[in-house]
Amino acid sequence: MVDIAVILGSLSDQHIADKVTDVLTKNNVSYDLRILSAHRDPDALDAYVRSTDARIFITIAGLSAALPGVVAARTDKPVIGVPVSAKLGGLDALLSIAQMPKGVPVACVGIDNGDNAAHMAIRILKLIK
Amino acid sequence: MVDIAVILGSLSDQHIADKVTDVLTKNNVSYDLRILSAHRDPDALDAYVRSTDARIFITIAGLSAALPGVVAARTDKPVIGVPVSAKLGGLDALLSIAQMPKGVPVACVGIDNGDNAAHMAIRILKLIK
Amino acid sequence: MVDIAVILGSLSDQHIADKVTDVLTKNNVSYDLRILSAHRDPDALDAYVRSTDARIFITIAGLSAALPGVVAARTDKPVIGVPVSAKLGGLDALLSIAQMPKGVPVACVGIDNGDNAAHMAIRILKLIK
Amino acid sequence: MVDIAVILGSLSDQHIADKVTDVLTKNNVSYDLRILSAHRDPDALDAYVRSTDARIFITIAGLSAALPGVVAARTDKPVIGVPVSAKLGGLDALLSIAQMPKGVPVACVGIDNGDNAAHMAIRILKLIK
Amino acid sequence: MVDIAVILGSLSDQHIADKVTDVLTKNNVSYDLRILSAHRDPDALDAYVRSTDARIFITIAGLSAALPGVVAARTDKPVIGVPVSAKLGGLDALLSIAQMPKGVPVACVGIDNGDNAAHMAIRILKLIK
Amino acid sequence: MVDIAVILGSLSDQHIADKVTDVLTKNNVSYDLRILSAHRDPDALDAYVRSTDARIFITIAGLSAALPGVVAARTDKPVIGVPVSAKLGGLDALLSIAQMPKGVPVACVGIDNGDNAAHMAIRILKLIK
Amino acid sequence: MVDIAVILGSLSDQHIADKVTDVLTKNNVSYDLRILSAHRDPDALDAYVRSTDARIFITIAGLSAALPGVVAARTDKPVIGVPVSAKLGGLDALLSIAQMPKGVPVACVGIDNGDNAAHMAIRILKLIK
Amino acid sequence: MVDIAVILGSLSDQHIADKVTDVLTKNNVSYDLRILSAHRDPDALDAYVRSTDARIFITIAGLSAALPGVVAARTDKPVIGVPVSAKLGGLDALLSIAQMPKGVPVACVGIDNGDNAAHMAIRILKLIK
Repeated sequence: MVDIAVILGSLSDQHIADKVTDVLTKNNVSYDLRILSAHRDPDALDAYVRSTDARIFITIAGLSAALPGVVAARTDKPVIGVPVSAKLGGLDALLSIAQMPKGVPVACVGIDNGDNAAHMAIRILKLIK
Repeated sequence: MVDIAVILGSLSDQHIADKVTDVLTKNNVSYDLRILSAHRDPDALDAYVRSTDARIFITIAGLSAALPGVVAARTDKPVIGVPVSAKLGGLDALLSIAQMPKGVPVACVGIDNGDNAAHMAIRILKLIK
Repeated sequence: MVDIAVILGSLSDQHIADKVTDVLTKNNVSYDLRILSAHRDPDALDAYVRSTDARIFITIAGLSAALPGVVAARTDKPVIGVPVSAKLGGLDALLSIAQMPKGVPVACVGIDNGDNAAHMAIRILKLIK
Repeated sequence: MVDIAVILGSLSDQHIADKVTDVLTKNNVSYDLRILSAHRDPDALDAYVRSTDARIFITIAGLSAALPGVVAARTDKPVIGVPVSAKLGGLDALLSIAQMPKGVPVACVGIDNGDNAAHMAIRILKLIK
Repeated sequence: MVDIAVILGSLSDQHIADKVTDVLTKNNVSYDLRILSAHRDPDALDAYVRSTDARIFITIAGLSAALPGVVAARTDKPVIGVPVSAKLGGLDALLSIAQMPKGVPVACVGIDNGDNAAHMAIRILKLIK
Repeated sequence: MVDIAVILGSLSDQHIADKVTDVLTKNNVSYDLRILSAHRDPDALDAYVRSTDARIFITIAGLSAALPGVVAARTDKPVIGVPVSAKLGGLDALLSIAQMPKGVPVACVGIDNGDNAAHMAIRILKLIK
Repeated sequence: MVDIAVILGSLSDQHIADKVTDVLTKNNVSYDLRILSAHRDPDALDAYVRSTDARIFITIAGLSAALPGVVAARTDKPVIGVPVSAKLGGLDALLSIAQMPKGVPVACVGIDNGDNAAHMAIRILKLIK
Repeated sequence: MVDIAVILGSLSDQHIADKVTDVLTKNNVSYDLRILSAHRDPDALDAYVRSTDARIFITIAGLSAALPGVVAARTDKPVIGVPVSAKLGGLDALLSIAQMPKGVPVACVGIDNGDNAAHMAIRILKLIK
C-alpha cells in the first residue's frame, strides 16, 4: 500500500513532480508515480484511479488541466491539483483546476507549487496516523 | 442516426443549449440532447460518447469546463466546445476549453456563443452532404 | 469535539458560509462557525486556531484573502480556502488564496464554491473514520 | 485539389505553421500554404479564399488576429484559427479568434497549438472519407 | 461630402454610436452612419470604405472587433476604433482593436467611449480647417 | 516648424521611439524628439506642449502611462499614445493610455508598436497636405 | 489649515469620496474637498496642489486614473490614490494608480476603498500629532 | 530608534529590498532590515512588529503577499507594501497587497518598485521632521 498516488498529465511536468516527490521522500511518505493524461490516456487513467490503494491523489497538469477534476470524478478520496505554467503564466491551469463544479472538489495549490501539494497531503495524513 | 450530439455539462447551461438547437432546427439538422457532466457523470458520459452514431459533438460547459476535452479524448470525431460565463465572465471556461494539449483537439467558439457552435457544425456537415 | 472549524473573514461572507454548513449538516459532519478576520481580529483568530480541537479548517474570505494563509501558518492541520467574489469577480481572492509560499499549503476551491470546501473536508474525514 | 488551405498572417508565424504542416504530412493530408495578412493583403486574401478548392482552412495569426474571422466571412467552409503568442502571452490573439459574432464561426484551438489545428482538420476529413 | 464615416459592426452597438453622433452634431461635424459588419457584410463594407469621400472613419465593434482593422486595411485615411463591452467587460474588443500589426494603424479609444472617438476626429479635423 | 512632436516618458523607452522615428524618417516626416516624463518633469512637459508648433504628438510611456493623457489635457491637437511593455506585458500601460475620460481623447496603438504610431500620424498628415 | 486635501477626478466618484469623508469626520480630521480632473482641469489642479496647506492628499479616480500621479508629480507631500471601478471592475484604475515610475510614489489602496484611504491618512497623521 | 522597519517575506525578495535600502541610505534615513514571513514566521513577525520603535513599515512580498496586511493588522503605524513579481508578472502580489478590507489600510506601490516604497516613506517622514 502507498500513501500517495502522484499523477502527471505529461512528461513535461516532471520538474514539478520532482518537487512533490522530494518533499514526500524527506517526510518518509510512500508514493507511486504515474504519467497519465486525462485527455490522451483516459482509460488507463480511469483504471489506475479505481485500482490504486493510495489514500490521496496529487495531480499535476498544465494548460486545460482536466486531470485533477477527472480523477476527482472517479474517486471519493481527496485530490490535490498543481497547476503548471505552460502558457499565460499558468493562469489557464489555475482556473481549470480551481473552478470545479459543485460536488466534485479539487484542492488547488499554487502555480508550479509541487512542494505545497506534498505538504497538503502530509497534513491530511497526519490526521490519520 | 442523428447528425449532432449536443451535451450540456449542467442543467444551468440550458439557455446556451437552446441557442444551439434553435440554429440546428432552423437548418434542418438532427440532434440528440443530453445533460452529462464530465465531473459528475463520467461513466454515463463515456458510454454515451462511445455509443452514439452522431457525426459531431457540441459540448457546453462553464467554470472548469472539462466536458469538451473529456469527450474529445473518447472519440475521434470533431468536438466543438462552448464556454459558458458562470464566473469571471467565462474566462475560466474559455481557457479550459481552448488550451487543450497536443493531439486532443477541441474547436472552441466564443463565450456563451451557442449559435456559432451550431454554425460551425453546419459548415462541417456541408462538406459531407 | 467538532470535525470542522468554519471561519469567515467577514459577516458579508455569510452567504458562502451557508453553502458550507448546508453540505456539512446534510452529511452529519459537526462544525463550529466563527467570524474572525485575519486583518481585523488577528489575536482572537490566533487564539481560536490554537485552541480548537477541530480536525480541519474551512476558511472563507474575499479581496486580499489572507485568512486561509494566516490560519495555515498557525496550525499543521489541513486548511481549505474559499475565495469570495467581492471585487474583480473574485480573481483577487482566488490568487491570494492559491498562490501560497512553499511550506504553508492551502487547499483552494473555486470562487464562491462553499459546497466544494465542505465536500473536500468530507473526503478527508472519510480517510479517518 | 488539396484538403487544407493553411494561411499565415505573417512570416513570423512560420514556426507555428511548421507544427501544422508536420502533423498534416505525417497523416498524408495535402495542403497549400500561403502567407496572407488580413490587414496587409486583404484583396489577395479575398481572392485566394474564393478561388481555392481546399475543403478546410487553417489560419494562424497573432495580436489582433483578424485573419480567421475574415476568412470565415468570405467562405462557408470550416475555418480553424490558431492564436499566436506575440504579446500578452497570446491572450490578445486568443480573444480575437474565439470571440466571433453570431453567424460567422471560427474553431479556435489553443495558443501556439498548431498541432491541434491539424488534428481538428483531420477529424473533420475523416467524416468525409 | 461628409467629414466622418461612422460604421457600427452591429445594431446592438447603437447606444455607443449615439454618443459619437451626439458629439459630432454638437460640434457641427457632418457624418454618415452605416451598420456594416466586417464578418457578416464584408463585400458591402469593402465597397463603402472604398467609395465614401469621408475624411476619417469612426468604427464601433464588440467581441472580436475586426471592423476597425478591416477598414484600416482598405483605406489610407485615419481610422478610429471604439471597443464595445459585450463580454469580458470589453477587454476582448479592446485588445482586438489596439493590437494591430505593424503598418495598419488603428487609433483605439476607451471601452464604450464613443465620445472620445468623436473628440479625436474633431482634433484631426481642426488641423485641416 | 516640425510635423510631429515625439515625447518619451523615460530614456528606457528609446527602443520604441526608434521605431517611431525610423518610420517618420522613411516617409520624410519631420519630427522633434524629447524625453519628458509626465510625473518627473511636469513643468517642462507643460511648457513644451504649449510652445511647440508640431501638428501631432506621439507619446511613448510604460507602466502607469500618464504621459499621453497629460499631453492631451494641455493641447487640442491629436495625441497618439504608445504603451510600452515594462511590467505585466504592457497591459498596465495599454489600459492607462486607452481608458481616458470623456472629452480628452488619446489615440492608443498597440503595445510597443511604435511603427503604428508613426503610420497613424502619417495618415493624419495626408489629410492636410 | 486643513489636514487632508480630498480630490475627485469626476463628480461620478462622489460615492467613493463620501466614504473617505465619513471616516475622516468620525476621526475629527479636517479636510477640503475638490473636484478637479487631471485631464480636464490641469491648470486648476496644478494651482490647487501648489497652494493648499493640507498635509496629505487623497485622490480618487477611475479609468486611466492619472490624478494621483499628476498630484504626486506636483508636490512632495504623501499622496494616496483610490482606484474607482468604472470599467473592467476597476483593474484599469488600479494599474494606473499603482504602477507609478520610480521617484514619484503614490500609495494605492483597494478598488473603491475610500475607507482605507482615510484610514491610511489617519495613520500618517498620528505620527505627527 | 530607527525611522523605517523594512521586512522581507523571503530571502528571494532581497533584490527588491536592496532598492528600498539604497534610496533610504541616499536620503540618510535609518532603517532596520528583517526577513520574516507572514506565513512561515508568524510569531516572530508579530513580536517584531509590536516591539520595534520604527515609525513606518516597508513590507516586501510576492505571490499571496499577506505580509503587508498582517503587519497592518498588528500596528497602527503606516504600512507600505511592495508586490514582487514571482508568478503571473506580480499580479497576484499586487492584488493581495492592494485589495485590503476596510479598516486595515496598506499603501501599495508598483510591482517590484522598491524605490517608490522608500520615496513614499520619505514623504511621510518629511511631515514629521
